[in-house]
Amino acid sequence: MTGSSASVAGVVGATGRLGAALCSALESAGVPIGLRASRAGWAVQEPPTVVFDVSGPECFDRTVRLCRQWSAALVYAVSAVPDAHADRLRQLGREVPVVRATNLSIGHWIQIRLLEAVASLGPSLPVLPVAAVWERHPITKADRPSASATELAEVWRESSGAPAADLTSVRAGHPVSDHAVQLDLPDESVTIAHAVTGIGAAVRGALLLLPWVSTAPAGLVTAHHIYDDLIAKGVPHAASPQH
Amino acid sequence: MTGSSASVAGVVGATGRLGAALCSALESAGVPIGLRASRAGWAVQEPPTVVFDVSGPECFDRTVRLCRQWSAALVYAVSAVPDAHADRLRQLGREVPVVRATNLSIGHWIQIRLLEAVASLGPSLPVLPVAAVWERHPITKADRPSASATELAEVWRESSGAPAADLTSVRAGHPVSDHAVQLDLPDESVTIAHAVTGIGAAVRGALLLLPWVSTAPAGLVTAHHIYDDLIAKGVPHAASPQH
Amino acid sequence: MTGSSASVAGVVGATGRLGAALCSALESAGVPIGLRASRAGWAVQEPPTVVFDVSGPECFDRTVRLCRQWSAALVYAVSAVPDAHADRLRQLGREVPVVRATNLSIGHWIQIRLLEAVASLGPSLPVLPVAAVWERHPITKADRPSASATELAEVWRESSGAPAADLTSVRAGHPVSDHAVQLDLPDESVTIAHAVTGIGAAVRGALLLLPWVSTAPAGLVTAHHIYDDLIAKGVPHAASPQH
Amino acid sequence: MTGSSASVAGVVGATGRLGAALCSALESAGVPIGLRASRAGWAVQEPPTVVFDVSGPECFDRTVRLCRQWSAALVYAVSAVPDAHADRLRQLGREVPVVRATNLSIGHWIQIRLLEAVASLGPSLPVLPVAAVWERHPITKADRPSASATELAEVWRESSGAPAADLTSVRAGHPVSDHAVQLDLPDESVTIAHAVTGIGAAVRGALLLLPWVSTAPAGLVTAHHIYDDLIAKGVPHAASPQH
Repeated sequence: MTGSSASVAGVVGATGRLGAALCSALESAGVPIGLRASRAGWAVQEPPTVVFDVSGPECFDRTVRLCRQWSAALVYAVSAVPDAHADRLRQLGREVPVVRATNLSIGHWIQIRLLEAVASLGPSLPVLPVAAVWERHPITKADRPSASATELAEVWRESSGAPAADLTSVRAGHPVSDHAVQLDLPDESVTIAHAVTGIGAAVRGALLLLPWVSTAPAGLVTAHHIYDDLIAKGVPHAASPQH
Repeated sequence: MTGSSASVAGVVGATGRLGAALCSALESAGVPIGLRASRAGWAVQEPPTVVFDVSGPECFDRTVRLCRQWSAALVYAVSAVPDAHADRLRQLGREVPVVRATNLSIGHWIQIRLLEAVASLGPSLPVLPVAAVWERHPITKADRPSASATELAEVWRESSGAPAADLTSVRAGHPVSDHAVQLDLPDESVTIAHAVTGIGAAVRGALLLLPWVSTAPAGLVTAHHIYDDLIAKGVPHAASPQH
Repeated sequence: MTGSSASVAGVVGATGRLGAALCSALESAGVPIGLRASRAGWAVQEPPTVVFDVSGPECFDRTVRLCRQWSAALVYAVSAVPDAHADRLRQLGREVPVVRATNLSIGHWIQIRLLEAVASLGPSLPVLPVAAVWERHPITKADRPSASATELAEVWRESSGAPAADLTSVRAGHPVSDHAVQLDLPDESVTIAHAVTGIGAAVRGALLLLPWVSTAPAGLVTAHHIYDDLIAKGVPHAASPQH
Repeated sequence: MTGSSASVAGVVGATGRLGAALCSALESAGVPIGLRASRAGWAVQEPPTVVFDVSGPECFDRTVRLCRQWSAALVYAVSAVPDAHADRLRQLGREVPVVRATNLSIGHWIQIRLLEAVASLGPSLPVLPVAAVWERHPITKADRPSASATELAEVWRESSGAPAADLTSVRAGHPVSDHAVQLDLPDESVTIAHAVTGIGAAVRGALLLLPWVSTAPAGLVTAHHIYDDLIAKGVPHAASPQH
């Protein structure tokens, strides 16, 4: 894990489902955890160089303050980000590396990139597909639609020029989640779906970000920007006639 | 429909489900139909410039002989193509434009292109996804798996370097078909699915090919090559970091 | 088709998708059509003995008036039924046979009966399943949720004693519709789904009702009551230990 | 847990995924575990009164011998049961209570009962549905189709009189499994699906059997027979017109 050898991680929300799994994975990867923050308290063993905030918006102020104090990078993976928080993340990005992640899983990033690939064909297709976004989380998730579903709808609108025609949330079933975008054409449909069955999908994404963010300059980027950089750089055209 | 104004179509298999719908669509588009071939006979009104063979392998010899006689282009959309037929299509391609189409629908082409986009990411992904191909047709379809499912599995193998781990055929439900490729990663999956609910999806694809093939030089190409040329030319990187 | 030999059908909404298919099926079955009503006019050839109203609420008054005038039975398959119309159907049921059908298809009736079968197990199950109802119609259907989905949620509430935890409508895809009830238990789910791919499903249901209603006494019943009578009478216990 | 207060459990296959989860659940329920058998050895602390064999066919002889020696009841939940083993389970049932379980989860039992409910309607339906059985397990499951899918197909054949038209196995995705029976009618389908997302579904089923089997007389029964007895006894007609 080049570049992260000297990293010390901090985890805000360390006793939540994602936080606990992240701590466990960091330990397995030999990354020291200098901060574990939860409702029980903010336990600092040594100043972290990269803080993962996977808690809720209520920890925002303290997380930001400590990142500035420690000059620590921040991976902010709380899905609900009010405008005021978004502004302050941008400000923090002038001092340290800041990563915003609506959804840490690699599969979500693939889904977004495939959706953009279809949207890029749109103007040349006989008709533009009509897009419908659908997501499912267990009944314990209160807010709807999910931030990831909203992102899918926005990506379609931005890259195709047409709004998603439908955005639906189902609250049923078991952890973790399903997200699908159905693209309707006359007499046929193409669907790009992403199912997450375990919290490990998000944990793996977080670990993938660590070496990148450990050596990055100050600046605000998205997790998807980093996945682009790590994975898709130099990728040949996805929808290319040359073959 | 530039380039097809002077086209005269021929339809081999003109009374089958796809053939009848194609004839009807050609008529609506104002394209004269010079040949209608079915079990009832081969009715020639005027020599076609583009022959669509949507029948079965049993018409192959006569179709090829007539295309040579008329110097007509051939769109060969019979899914079962034995090696001997493939060879002769290649030979015919030295004289006239020949298009092979495993599946005429645009949605199938999109599905293939998206699958290639994921495969192209493979070497950079933390782990290569495990691919499983699944298809469904009504119980009336005798052969399994479908040629389109086999093509999906082959595209994955060629573009990712790893074989599809599973290839399954379900015979149930109503016309027309479903094809899905599930790409499993640890704790998550991305699925690229294509559902066809009406024969119009294939008919629209055939009509899209007509102007291209009407002005093409001799040569054997795939329908997907033509869709690439018509639709994806100049498409920006599907999985590209520059945005 | 015992009992319907002397029937004369009337179809209100005769040029709509369902109405036109119903007229065609009645003709194939040798049932004379005495009334064809559409926006173009109410064409009466002979007084019908059974009127199918598959139009919209705007025809309600005229349909009811004519059924009374002709002493004709009424199969009322308009899905939106305001309370005032429900009251008047009850009144009409004192004079002639009246059938209310939220959804004419046999598959919907099977789905409802299976849902009731699970609900009846509820009190004995280790935990009551949590039910979520989901429906999909093409984007052209304006109102949501569908009357059939609302019925599924109500059937669950009435037969299990607990409300459906979720009721979601997707507007995407192709005709006709999907309805599913997912029943979640810890670590597992049972789903009862109904997919309609052609208008013939409703037409077949309507034809099934015809002989029954042709010989029925005055009274208001549901289509499901008639299907129970025709199909499920004397059915052995669905969830019974004696076998 | 009436009747099991004096039970002592034995678990053969105690270190497998299901076995380990079962041991943990038995401990949580306060049931002493007198035998834990695995490749590491058969550790007997006290003679069990009920043995759960969730291992593989290779333990069969020893499991049967010990049940006879201890006069212990046996819950045999190994899915592959050769004919010779089936015979010996019948013989063992003359001495002690023996329960055969193809699939311990309650959801599978519900699925089977719903399938029988539809089959029982078959003769009265306008046409008998065409059944297709589909199952999915992760790629690590070698044998296909699953015993549960075979059971679904057999239940349909026995209760409807017609064989399942299709029986398909997909090997893809994440633990645990999906089983679906699609029942096709003209222009519509009813699907009864069962998804298992955690091993807890089988564990809960095993715990449900324990008190019943602890007080049962000698005899060979199926787990479904017991669920019928515990859950469905006195259940009103599932598909009954009287309501």
